[in-house]
Amino acid sequence: MVFIQSQFITGHGAPWIEVEELLKSERNFQVSQRKWAPREKHFKNPMGDQKLMEDGTSRFTCKGKPIYHFMGTSTFSQYTVVSDVNLAKLDDDANLERVCLLGCAFSTGYGAVINNAKVTPGSTCAIFGLGGVGLSAVMGCKASGASRIIVIDINSEKFTKAKALGATDCLNPKDLDKPIQEVIIEMTNGGVDFAFECVGGAKIMRAALDSVTVGWGVCTIIGVNVGDNGLNVSAMELLMGRTLTGTCFGGWKGVTSVPKLAADYKNKKLDLDALVSHTLPFDKVNEAFDLMYQGKSIRTVLLF
Amino acid sequence: MVFIQSQFITGHGAPWIEVEELLKSERNFQVSQRKWAPREKHFKNPMGDQKLMEDGTSRFTCKGKPIYHFMGTSTFSQYTVVSDVNLAKLDDDANLERVCLLGCAFSTGYGAVINNAKVTPGSTCAIFGLGGVGLSAVMGCKASGASRIIVIDINSEKFTKAKALGATDCLNPKDLDKPIQEVIIEMTNGGVDFAFECVGGAKIMRAALDSVTVGWGVCTIIGVNVGDNGLNVSAMELLMGRTLTGTCFGGWKGVTSVPKLAADYKNKKLDLDALVSHTLPFDKVNEAFDLMYQGKSIRTVLLF
Repeated sequence: MVFIQSQFITGHGAPWIEVEELLKSERNFQVSQRKWAPREKHFKNPMGDQKLMEDGTSRFTCKGKPIYHFMGTSTFSQYTVVSDVNLAKLDDDANLERVCLLGCAFSTGYGAVINNAKVTPGSTCAIFGLGGVGLSAVMGCKASGASRIIVIDINSEKFTKAKALGATDCLNPKDLDKPIQEVIIEMTNGGVDFAFECVGGAKIMRAALDSVTVGWGVCTIIGVNVGDNGLNVSAMELLMGRTLTGTCFGGWKGVTSVPKLAADYKNKKLDLDALVSHTLPFDKVNEAFDLMYQGKSIRTVLLF
Repeated sequence: MVFIQSQFITGHGAPWIEVEELLKSERNFQVSQRKWAPREKHFKNPMGDQKLMEDGTSRFTCKGKPIYHFMGTSTFSQYTVVSDVNLAKLDDDANLERVCLLGCAFSTGYGAVINNAKVTPGSTCAIFGLGGVGLSAVMGCKASGASRIIVIDINSEKFTKAKALGATDCLNPKDLDKPIQEVIIEMTNGGVDFAFECVGGAKIMRAALDSVTVGWGVCTIIGVNVGDNGLNVSAMELLMGRTLTGTCFGGWKGVTSVPKLAADYKNKKLDLDALVSHTLPFDKVNEAFDLMYQGKSIRTVLLF
């Protein structure tokens, strides 16, 4: 089988999938049950971007040539083949234009705070980047009882929403005359207890790690800048008691956690509405990408 | 004040210090009480190697020139000046030839497992380096109920003691025909739950991080190789759920924890004896360093 490395069908969160054909599953799915396709994290050895099925095959072709899957779901397709561990069952009355955000943005940012870093009441937090993940992290810090939630973005227009969700201090590095980490260290008398890097790239990873206090500071990496070389970390930075960790789905397990999060949204315990800035038909998917790259959208929901 | 950068009085753990002069303290020390000088970790901003007192001065001179402190204690000196946060009170009957190991070796390795990584019962662990810190980590893993304790050292003579303390698998990288991390990943079907790097240097940090499973693996850095450039970590390595952390005193607080550890030794809950391979008079301190560098000693206790 020959793949052209760069060709795959993207998309990694979609509700309202009708199971048309059930090949094999130990779980009690039935054909045509409404399902939801999150990524799943309970493999002993998750496959990273899950570009192939577990048996090493792809189930997509284009003009006769095989095409990769993406994150085990490839939800930007009318038809897909997924492993049953990538499916979770939702209630029939789930709001499908909102629970799609449980595929990554909300789950990742909120879960990074709640499940991974385990932010404690009264703690100080810094969140780098105010996209869907970053704003969800703000919600997580607020829900965790953080006393100070410092947000950082180079687009000051995002601060209004961040403040509405719980941010206490808003910093735009473009407005500052010294490195952002120095400002945060001064503001917090030595650094925050928790930092969340929701952008990607070594430069911001470095700023986030520098921003946490020695002794017990936890820096959680969530952003990815594809092709970036990563961060150089010296032993001494860690020996003084810092922790560097990361997450790509906020520590949730898709099959069991996503239905609970969907129920929490229905019961108004979680605010997914705040993340949806645009809704577009699917054939405007490229417009949605443009809005994202231009920093004009938080999340655009695409309707098939 | 002019310092020659490389000149300081080393040593960072010593019992039986008589307090001859009490300059100022909010704690209830009395002059001539027997004390113990551990490093202290409850500063908001610990000073790293604490080469100066908090007021920025040194209290040592040599031939009229100022000399740095080391780790806030400089215990390789008959007389020293320390902050009261670097003192803990011990019982009069404490075994001074053993509780000196609570200054770093035992506390650091054992605490890294118990307090920092928080090893769970039934988990798999890998410990890189079998000096005093590494062997103490073995004891910590054993006490935590780890199901598998894999130890790695380039000196196979150290494996007998490691096995006696709880190691289940012993690997000498010199005897293997592929990288140590590949061997550990194969042995454990994807990597260990916890790794402890007790040697120092980017190469072994890399091996230790590679050895932990994606999803939830925790790699704790304890070793230092002075001048080493550190480890390059990509976001993707962390996003799949790995954690990289470090410790220099095992998460203990000297003032309150050291007396408890000393009591645990007296009550035979902890085995400090296993770490003492040699006892020498203080004027043979250089011989003790040679034994350490040659890998012939675990810890040498020096007697004034």
